Amino acid sequence: MTERFVLVEQALSKMLEEKKYAALRDVLVTMNPSDIAAMFADVEQEQLPLLFRLLPKELAAETFVEMEPEEQELLIRGFSDNELKLLMEELYADDAADLVEEMPANVVKRILRHAQPEMRSAINQLLRYPENTAGSIMTTEYVSLRPQMTVEEAILRIRRQGVDKETIYTCYVTEGRKLLGLVSLKDLLLCVDDETPVEEIMLTNIISVTTHTDREEVAKMMSKYHFLALPVVDGENRMVGIVTFDDAVEVLEEETTEDMEIMGGMLPSEKTYLKSTPWELFRNRIPWLMLLMVTATFTGMIINAFESALAAQVALTAFIPMLMGTGGNSGSQSSVTVIRALSLDELRFRDLPRVIWKEIRTAVLCGVVLAVVCFAKIWLVDRMLLGNTQITLMVDAVVCLALLVTVLLAKLVGAALPMAAKAIGLDPAVMASPFITSIVDAVSLLVYFLFAGFLLGI
Amino acid sequence: MTERFVLVEQALSKMLEEKKYAALRDVLVTMNPSDIAAMFADVEQEQLPLLFRLLPKELAAETFVEMEPEEQELLIRGFSDNELKLLMEELYADDAADLVEEMPANVVKRILRHAQPEMRSAINQLLRYPENTAGSIMTTEYVSLRPQMTVEEAILRIRRQGVDKETIYTCYVTEGRKLLGLVSLKDLLLCVDDETPVEEIMLTNIISVTTHTDREEVAKMMSKYHFLALPVVDGENRMVGIVTFDDAVEVLEEETTEDMEIMGGMLPSEKTYLKSTPWELFRNRIPWLMLLMVTATFTGMIINAFESALAAQVALTAFIPMLMGTGGNSGSQSSVTVIRALSLDELRFRDLPRVIWKEIRTAVLCGVVLAVVCFAKIWLVDRMLLGNTQITLMVDAVVCLALLVTVLLAKLVGAALPMAAKAIGLDPAVMASPFITSIVDAVSLLVYFLFAGFLLGI
Repeated sequence: MTERFVLVEQALSKMLEEKKYAALRDVLVTMNPSDIAAMFADVEQEQLPLLFRLLPKELAAETFVEMEPEEQELLIRGFSDNELKLLMEELYADDAADLVEEMPANVVKRILRHAQPEMRSAINQLLRYPENTAGSIMTTEYVSLRPQMTVEEAILRIRRQGVDKETIYTCYVTEGRKLLGLVSLKDLLLCVDDETPVEEIMLTNIISVTTHTDREEVAKMMSKYHFLALPVVDGENRMVGIVTFDDAVEVLEEETTEDMEIMGGMLPSEKTYLKSTPWELFRNRIPWLMLLMVTATFTGMIINAFESALAAQVALTAFIPMLMGTGGNSGSQSSVTVIRALSLDELRFRDLPRVIWKEIRTAVLCGVVLAVVCFAKIWLVDRMLLGNTQITLMVDAVVCLALLVTVLLAKLVGAALPMAAKAIGLDPAVMASPFITSIVDAVSLLVYFLFAGFLLGI
Repeated sequence: MTERFVLVEQALSKMLEEKKYAALRDVLVTMNPSDIAAMFADVEQEQLPLLFRLLPKELAAETFVEMEPEEQELLIRGFSDNELKLLMEELYADDAADLVEEMPANVVKRILRHAQPEMRSAINQLLRYPENTAGSIMTTEYVSLRPQMTVEEAILRIRRQGVDKETIYTCYVTEGRKLLGLVSLKDLLLCVDDETPVEEIMLTNIISVTTHTDREEVAKMMSKYHFLALPVVDGENRMVGIVTFDDAVEVLEEETTEDMEIMGGMLPSEKTYLKSTPWELFRNRIPWLMLLMVTATFTGMIINAFESALAAQVALTAFIPMLMGTGGNSGSQSSVTVIRALSLDELRFRDLPRVIWKEIRTAVLCGVVLAVVCFAKIWLVDRMLLGNTQITLMVDAVVCLALLVTVLLAKLVGAALPMAAKAIGLDPAVMASPFITSIVDAVSLLVYFLFAGFLLGI
């Protein structure tokens, strides 16, 4: 796929160089809007308007939607009034609203001046919904039917109105704008009697969301129920728009990226990695780094408190990184698993006892195996092979017992904290590796020194 | 949403207790198959067959597909031959193949015995494709049209054959099974002249995959191009099936879970968390824990090598956890960002120089700010507040210079390793936090002791 794409790109840039515009156009019309947009992102800025004008009207609009804001702005600034008007006629209301949101004020003014009055009011309506809500990702272009229409009339209406609708495959039955039911085009087409009224075959157990439902919840519902589109209603169950599956997939991807960023100890970013400036990356990364660096003061204090123990048994220092590392990894394994299960709604807070019990048994298995292997490794490698005579059987035992207890505590903390976060309304992803590691670092040191105190008498 | 669901569940279990089956049925038929399956997962096993039999045929099949394998097996074992036959008639081929894959041998035999001959051969064909390929997630039930058919004939064919097809919204134009083009139901319905031959309005720049294309690539293509269905062809461009968007969304979710598990230092799991036994969790978690514990031998060896330096300046030990922790966090921020960008195809290997340059600038910003704050914190808190007189200005400088260099190196390693992994065909997710942290631990210690050697002369 990617290889084929690179070949096409090379061929196109050659045609462009040689100014073979007719041939270029012939190739472009066979391509998919996403691929054309990706190719346009790589060409010189001056050539962009020229290339864009090669595209037929509909393909041009579809490609425009897939482009990055900077390139969109560049194109709009170069458009004649008529070109802008044609583009606005081809765009769906939700894409037009997204465009208006991204452009600077003077460009927005020009866009709105050249949009049809209905389009202008649709854009204004869509922009009024808060970010991250169903209202902000929905479109107002859906097919509505009346309950008394026959199947034949309904199909006729779809054939007449469908061209401007984002989907015609799910139609909404309304009366006085109230949502009464929905009917799929499949059910309409497969209905044997054309005279059947729509209300007889429509589904009335409608699953809908309101304009203020969180967009992540909308996307999850669509993926759970395998819907092509989901109706959005206002507080009085009046139909205001639909969310289509392609927007839902995009939301799911963005939310996953956000989860991963938070789990990696960063603030969620607005832009893709390559588009972010070092300053923006810095601003997203520094808060957690700073916080975690400062909390490491505690680990330092613990080491200071047991300084005399370390001085008496210098060999103990060498195992601190291994203990903290294994503890951190054990904890992040559990936290990642639990955070993902929570995000997929596989886990609820009432499952906490089951989770704890499962983690205890897993941790004992992991801890015992690690401790046994570690004990043998220290004795065979560090003591016998490397000849470190400070390592006695007792020192070896202290390290491995501390390891066992650390793994157990790390897994419990790693599993419990994300669930607790969810219960009090925080994002569980915050309780991922960086945070868990900081806690486990301190815990593992305390355990280590306590065992050293008991068993080595220091 | 969830709240409403809990209320419904309580009402249903009350009806069940009071044996109000007619009322129960009336409620169930208004529910969505996913929700019914979720509810069935919570009821007593003995009641399951009874409840299932309350559902009308089609809803029963749709619910069955959403259930867990254990419950499916329980139901099948209790089915009469006739019930099993009815169920098999309602299932789509891809769902039937998934079922056969999950059931034990004796149940499979019974299933195949009661399937129609065409269904049996479809199942057998689907099972022949390797796991994780397009072939393994496709279905063979699509609408195919002939190029010479008129739009009217095509619509008629869809109305006649559509009931058994997984989607009728995208139709495939074939001749001698070769895929010539595709046409959406929207284009057919909106075509003004019913006598137009299908070949005149079909799209011929088809994007298709082969049966052996990786299912993750299939899902990504569908999400990128916003397709409802994607045709799957064999080596001779003969149409063999389609992948529908709901299966693609499921694949995207499963692959994301797998990415997160690998990034958390685990082997990918086959089952959900609550269904996994501690033994299975152990087997997925122990390999990386073991590997990383053993590699920590190197950090131990570095500390041993600089033992005399530590003995001369005991204060240095207390800052080891902070240095390693901040280094690990810096590295995992970069690796998570790069791994996600790679997985979304936002980054390619040729972007490596840009990535390195971006990370250097970000790392210098982060490193300088952290070092300055750390310097002040050590002097104000550790030296003046806690009165640790071993900390001289020179010791403070060693810690903060080591911190600056560690952050820089960690970010470079964190960003570069996933890209290198991708270049040599490994999964970039392997190069996530646990792995990066192990490398950065060793690097940060080396840097620390080198600075200590230079500046403190030990």
